[in-house]
Amino acid sequence: MIQRISILGTGLLGTSVGLALRVAGFKDSIAGWNRSPEQAQLALSMGAIDSIASDPIEAARTSEVTVLAVPIYATIDFMEKLAPVLGPDHLVTDVGSTKRAIAEAAARLYNAPGRAAFLPGHPMAGKERGGASLADANLFRGAVWLFTPDPAIHASRANAADSPANAASGTVSCQGTTSVVPQDGPNESGALAPAGISPTGAALIQEWRSLVTAMGAKTLDLDPARHDELVAWVSHLPQFTATALSALLEEEVGDAPELKDVGGRALREMTRLGSSPYSMWRDIAHTNTEAVERALLALEQRLALLRENLRGPVLRDQFEQANKFRRE
Amino acid sequence: MIQRISILGTGLLGTSVGLALRVAGFKDSIAGWNRSPEQAQLALSMGAIDSIASDPIEAARTSEVTVLAVPIYATIDFMEKLAPVLGPDHLVTDVGSTKRAIAEAAARLYNAPGRAAFLPGHPMAGKERGGASLADANLFRGAVWLFTPDPAIHASRANAADSPANAASGTVSCQGTTSVVPQDGPNESGALAPAGISPTGAALIQEWRSLVTAMGAKTLDLDPARHDELVAWVSHLPQFTATALSALLEEEVGDAPELKDVGGRALREMTRLGSSPYSMWRDIAHTNTEAVERALLALEQRLALLRENLRGPVLRDQFEQANKFRRE
Repeated sequence: MIQRISILGTGLLGTSVGLALRVAGFKDSIAGWNRSPEQAQLALSMGAIDSIASDPIEAARTSEVTVLAVPIYATIDFMEKLAPVLGPDHLVTDVGSTKRAIAEAAARLYNAPGRAAFLPGHPMAGKERGGASLADANLFRGAVWLFTPDPAIHASRANAADSPANAASGTVSCQGTTSVVPQDGPNESGALAPAGISPTGAALIQEWRSLVTAMGAKTLDLDPARHDELVAWVSHLPQFTATALSALLEEEVGDAPELKDVGGRALREMTRLGSSPYSMWRDIAHTNTEAVERALLALEQRLALLRENLRGPVLRDQFEQANKFRRE
Repeated sequence: MIQRISILGTGLLGTSVGLALRVAGFKDSIAGWNRSPEQAQLALSMGAIDSIASDPIEAARTSEVTVLAVPIYATIDFMEKLAPVLGPDHLVTDVGSTKRAIAEAAARLYNAPGRAAFLPGHPMAGKERGGASLADANLFRGAVWLFTPDPAIHASRANAADSPANAASGTVSCQGTTSVVPQDGPNESGALAPAGISPTGAALIQEWRSLVTAMGAKTLDLDPARHDELVAWVSHLPQFTATALSALLEEEVGDAPELKDVGGRALREMTRLGSSPYSMWRDIAHTNTEAVERALLALEQRLALLRENLRGPVLRDQFEQANKFRRE
């Protein structure tokens, strides 16, 4: 059904999506747009897109699927601009790192009768720096690609999962918080059409999910609020920790660069994410503030616990608990 | 001059030293001892040693060089036992992760007329788990191997570095805190013989330094106190941070193991050191407590600074400072 995909934002993620779609066997048209024309030109020269769109709105209007691969506030801005010009034969999806604000905009502007479908997405893949030049056709291979569909869709899918037909198609329900999405159940299209999403929209969602799987990713559905809480722990906390550690070490040993070698692989790994630019993390810090605050405070308290027990039995317990995390 | 080397402790580091010595071209005898005979047997079968010593003291007595590759308190214990039975034709060295306690024991027990020489060493290489089975002939390739020689030796070397002969041999002096050791200066043996170390001891030290370089490591001399302060920042802080982060995440997401995949490479890297066993870190926490406490407290404060400024300009400054650390 998909004959044209528009990628708005041909940075690291957008360009990697184009490259991965080609490797996954998508043979039809991929148009690309970027605020900076050089990045679009680079994506074109790498084969990630086959044409550069001069007008992103017009590109979305003439594509069945539009992938928004820009920062979070820019994503919401595009959602506002696209909603009035797209209709029930369009699907818009995104790759933003927080999902509550985007899912709220989707509920407000999309997934209603006469409107385009919107499927919030978040591939858990990236690099410490952005830009088309670092794009990689295999970036999503083995990675988890999260979706936070509208609760109405989610409820419909969860119910459908109880039926024998879907039970056989690989649906796994995880304590009500997550559900692994069935990839190829025969009755999926039927199960995917809740009130408010057109049959075409539902079919496009299913086709996009299949393309994501074909790019090598494992898909997983989460509630948007639960998504933002989870990534605060497993993605945002590691990033802010690496940033804090790198910034601190810049002050402590930054004047003796030869001493950085002393830290070896362990130090390199623990500070690699210190290279991440503020521009990639500003919108995340703004749209997931409370969850990140909770995670940072918990780590501060955990470090204090270790500090106060360097010579006591609590240190052994903490090492053993850390070992357990890595064993599972 | 070295015809026999004894490695006391054939775990990850000791066994890797044996393997690396062979790759470096050392063709004479390497005896090994381990508290657990299985580990010694494994080191023998891997070719890291060519005989298993039943008595570590006797092995040291019949070797020109003894490498202590056991935890820090066990190292000091061996130093006490070996000092009375070794003499000026012996060199003992170690691979322990903190150096103040070991350098103090060396000053008390070695490097005096009639005594054996002792050169405290610390290769900045390792893995998150120990054991001979993980040993690697290339573990030290490209790594820094720190030495904290007796201040008397250090002073002698620093003075020698000012002479034209040594200035040409690659000596670099870093603000009085560190000095890159010349590898092959023609006058090195002369410069290495301060009062208290026999000419044989000085020559053995020089030969061991050459072997370390031949294993692929870059050597660097530090004052023992400065060493412990530095590694608190670049090695111990990253380890305790990974342990705290892993232990915290075990509590927060440990009951949903499939969610760990969500974190991807960033989470894997930031928690890899969480696998390190308490047994490898207990002596480090005990012998470098104050410096590690300072580093942990500073990181707690840095994380709090980020937490309190997730929506403010300070966050940008911290990202930029972290970027700077990684750029240099």
